[in-house]
Amino acid sequence: MEGKEEDVRLGANKFSERQPIGTAAQSQDKDYKEPPPAPLFEPGELQSWSFYRAGIAEFMATFLFLYITILTVMGVVKSNSKCSTVGIQGIAWAFGGMIFALVYCTAGISGGHINPAVTFGLLLARKLSLTRAVFYMVMQCLGAICGAGVVKGFQKGLYESNGGGANVVAPGYTKGDGLGAEIIGTFVLVYTVLSATDAKRNARDSHVPILAPLPIGFAVFLVHLATIPITGTGINPARSLGAAIIYNKDHAWDDQWIFWVGPFIGAALASIYHQVVIRAIPFKSRP
Amino acid sequence: MEGKEEDVRLGANKFSERQPIGTAAQSQDKDYKEPPPAPLFEPGELQSWSFYRAGIAEFMATFLFLYITILTVMGVVKSNSKCSTVGIQGIAWAFGGMIFALVYCTAGISGGHINPAVTFGLLLARKLSLTRAVFYMVMQCLGAICGAGVVKGFQKGLYESNGGGANVVAPGYTKGDGLGAEIIGTFVLVYTVLSATDAKRNARDSHVPILAPLPIGFAVFLVHLATIPITGTGINPARSLGAAIIYNKDHAWDDQWIFWVGPFIGAALASIYHQVVIRAIPFKSRP
Amino acid sequence: MEGKEEDVRLGANKFSERQPIGTAAQSQDKDYKEPPPAPLFEPGELQSWSFYRAGIAEFMATFLFLYITILTVMGVVKSNSKCSTVGIQGIAWAFGGMIFALVYCTAGISGGHINPAVTFGLLLARKLSLTRAVFYMVMQCLGAICGAGVVKGFQKGLYESNGGGANVVAPGYTKGDGLGAEIIGTFVLVYTVLSATDAKRNARDSHVPILAPLPIGFAVFLVHLATIPITGTGINPARSLGAAIIYNKDHAWDDQWIFWVGPFIGAALASIYHQVVIRAIPFKSRP
Amino acid sequence: MEGKEEDVRLGANKFSERQPIGTAAQSQDKDYKEPPPAPLFEPGELQSWSFYRAGIAEFMATFLFLYITILTVMGVVKSNSKCSTVGIQGIAWAFGGMIFALVYCTAGISGGHINPAVTFGLLLARKLSLTRAVFYMVMQCLGAICGAGVVKGFQKGLYESNGGGANVVAPGYTKGDGLGAEIIGTFVLVYTVLSATDAKRNARDSHVPILAPLPIGFAVFLVHLATIPITGTGINPARSLGAAIIYNKDHAWDDQWIFWVGPFIGAALASIYHQVVIRAIPFKSRP
Repeated sequence: MEGKEEDVRLGANKFSERQPIGTAAQSQDKDYKEPPPAPLFEPGELQSWSFYRAGIAEFMATFLFLYITILTVMGVVKSNSKCSTVGIQGIAWAFGGMIFALVYCTAGISGGHINPAVTFGLLLARKLSLTRAVFYMVMQCLGAICGAGVVKGFQKGLYESNGGGANVVAPGYTKGDGLGAEIIGTFVLVYTVLSATDAKRNARDSHVPILAPLPIGFAVFLVHLATIPITGTGINPARSLGAAIIYNKDHAWDDQWIFWVGPFIGAALASIYHQVVIRAIPFKSRP
Repeated sequence: MEGKEEDVRLGANKFSERQPIGTAAQSQDKDYKEPPPAPLFEPGELQSWSFYRAGIAEFMATFLFLYITILTVMGVVKSNSKCSTVGIQGIAWAFGGMIFALVYCTAGISGGHINPAVTFGLLLARKLSLTRAVFYMVMQCLGAICGAGVVKGFQKGLYESNGGGANVVAPGYTKGDGLGAEIIGTFVLVYTVLSATDAKRNARDSHVPILAPLPIGFAVFLVHLATIPITGTGINPARSLGAAIIYNKDHAWDDQWIFWVGPFIGAALASIYHQVVIRAIPFKSRP
Repeated sequence: MEGKEEDVRLGANKFSERQPIGTAAQSQDKDYKEPPPAPLFEPGELQSWSFYRAGIAEFMATFLFLYITILTVMGVVKSNSKCSTVGIQGIAWAFGGMIFALVYCTAGISGGHINPAVTFGLLLARKLSLTRAVFYMVMQCLGAICGAGVVKGFQKGLYESNGGGANVVAPGYTKGDGLGAEIIGTFVLVYTVLSATDAKRNARDSHVPILAPLPIGFAVFLVHLATIPITGTGINPARSLGAAIIYNKDHAWDDQWIFWVGPFIGAALASIYHQVVIRAIPFKSRP
Repeated sequence: MEGKEEDVRLGANKFSERQPIGTAAQSQDKDYKEPPPAPLFEPGELQSWSFYRAGIAEFMATFLFLYITILTVMGVVKSNSKCSTVGIQGIAWAFGGMIFALVYCTAGISGGHINPAVTFGLLLARKLSLTRAVFYMVMQCLGAICGAGVVKGFQKGLYESNGGGANVVAPGYTKGDGLGAEIIGTFVLVYTVLSATDAKRNARDSHVPILAPLPIGFAVFLVHLATIPITGTGINPARSLGAAIIYNKDHAWDDQWIFWVGPFIGAALASIYHQVVIRAIPFKSRP
């Protein structure tokens, strides 16, 4: 039985996945080589142009992300009749669609994170160095601040009287609800990122990553559909920080910790789930 | 004439399909080998880690599916003005979009069913063993219960006063209407799943399955557009059961049978249609 | 100059297209062979199972198309507040999304026409025989009648008092406006079908047809966004006939000719444009 | 360190990007050859049928683009209740969806610009000759005028009393706001076009351009979601000119310069960003 190759013949699953418990998890697929974990510090990185270019690309992507999404939010919230705007659904499309387009455009330059929680999840999965992760997060936050700043520049009064697109826990929900919504929402996003870009799938099924930016963008769209009524949906600490700094009112700062702690916990859980359950990496002998 | 290769030269159809009636249906395509039907019981399966991992992936996917979709439903129904929510169309996007993203993410692990009716349809098409089918269905139902439970945890009062996302036949429709809507709706879904992941197409047209999760997700979206006014749209017994158990009021249980019988009949019809009409399997001599 | 290979280096265009006027249009691309035009009558076709299977697939696809779309239309028009429905945009998604999913599912079986105007356009481009074209159109119309019939079965009173999804020219527009809208709308659709499935592109750029059902579905969606206020959007004579027969009131029959003449003129213009301008077939010497 | 190949192992990024600062930017990738810049004047081009065919394709695409989008705008603005129309979000889908479908259909013929700002950006990136760029822009403007003209033909009175789909800066915004919105909006579009069709990515990652029309279409959709409340969203001088000429009222002409200067500045910035930061072309020694 152990030598048999095919046991999963379900829809869309063309690959043998049979691994006898206890031993097979250690076996290596013939056509797949686990990339070694990224080193935490890789000093040579700091001397490559591609490192700084990647940071600039993260800055630019997060800048455009905040600009388009916060401007869409402003267009909806300032209108009395939501019917004459793109509506709450339009806001969700703005967030998800921008992530789709920006991941597509920057994946080849920086990996297309555009979100400190995604960077954190990939760091835990040892896909990039700590140096790079910190550099990305700083650039993402700077880009987010600039993007929200441009929106405020267009319409200062309206921006301040309409909440500035900042994330807060909505009335009727506890801080715990908001934290939970951020944790599960970020889990959905980082779970999709890790599944869609999994090196194991890439090696065996070369066409899978073609569409990867699309499910990632949809994940962002879907979490917004569900949790805009609870927190306005953060799941991206740079987005929450940028809007809070530019809006800069007390009640936006009161909840800010939720939009950092929640996404980082959610990203960590998704990374653990992917590494332990899906990839069974702890049970594999390293070469 | 019999030896001629090309008779279908229509848009997007690059393959010879000419089969003389009565005999050609038994011929084998050169580049395609019908996979043998999956055995009903395959004891070795129970000792492979991939079997349990697939079950965990189905649990997790159905958990996230119910969490996002029921939370979206709650956000819409609790508001007096649907205009200030993502709207009924947003609900349809939540269901269809989650199926797209989750099928994309779990197809390589479990086949990405996330729905007992899909599992049932694939079982009838002999794509997986009975053992695996039962295990998947149990994990899907458990995941659905947990997903709906988390949503109730966020807002217990609102959840109970707003129907809890449970499927019921709407006033003005008979039980027969609801059953018919569930049968045809599930037919659309399982027909799409079987067409999009057809091994015959995979072998001859290697690019087809790339997009497979997208038409499958759209099928779910479209059935919701059409039948939300009739039944709220089930076409997924795990989704209907999970919401009913967490909501747990009489009128949700009264119609529960419709959301099991309907989807299973629809899945069976789609499986028969695909095997008999499209694949002509009964007329082929097995090697 | 004549021997130079590269003159179009624009975005997304990787192919040399340089053809000196007058002579180069007759030259053959090395890696591309124009398929011969389909014969008008091909008697052997009538003895192949694939011919009848293709007809059944067209029937089934058009049945499901009308069922989902007309049911969506009914759900919207019967409600006083469009805000509590999927809205007019949801109707457009239903039509476009179904065409996407159904073309994806049936392209490998019948070519995925689901529309007599598309069949007519492909007949003019000599992509299928006259026998097959007539058979497809009959099956499409039968499927459409059955699909609309099931919707009426669900809610006979509402169906008849709400227009039954039948196409009519809206008040404030002339018959000429309606005819023009149908002609240009069908031009958009058939132009997209011919461009997206062009054999020339297939041969040189093997990845292009992967997404073909998606722009085709979007074309249908977009024409609906634009012309629902004028005619309810036909661009598919089977869809218009099916709804008219089941609705069966005088004013639906008065305009029926528009939804046959318009789409057939539009399809013919698109076929001529594609064959003459894009493919320059009249100027090529046939081998 | 310099010889090491892998330093970016992030999600979706499979390529070594390590380039030591100062020297590596000049190195050539083994599997990638920078295409030489297009000459400004290439007289032979004027004698090729493909040159004129490309112009006709640009005319036709821009004609269909204006027809569908302006007709959608008219359907929404003429209704008192936006709820009974496809809504502002539907307008955004019309613009973005048409660009997706038309780029898909015309990419192989003309490159699929459909927008003088895109042509200008690609000219600055030296992807096409000046002759071709001017010819494309003229054809795009003619197509846009004809497309808007047909819409006016359907409903002359309504067209003139409802703004004719012309771009103007909305009350409450300064001309500077409008100009800024057009600059950043066009930057988003041309940045996406250049990233999605980058020859460098094509050479190394052959599957990337498959989806290219989709993020380009989404970019247009997203900019419309954000800036319809400010300027109605131009980011396409042909679209703005066509609507203004057919509408032909003073206040549409007053702001017309914004919809030429803004998009051209935005396209130039995107071209500079892409050439200097992403491709580092100024730092490379030319062979």
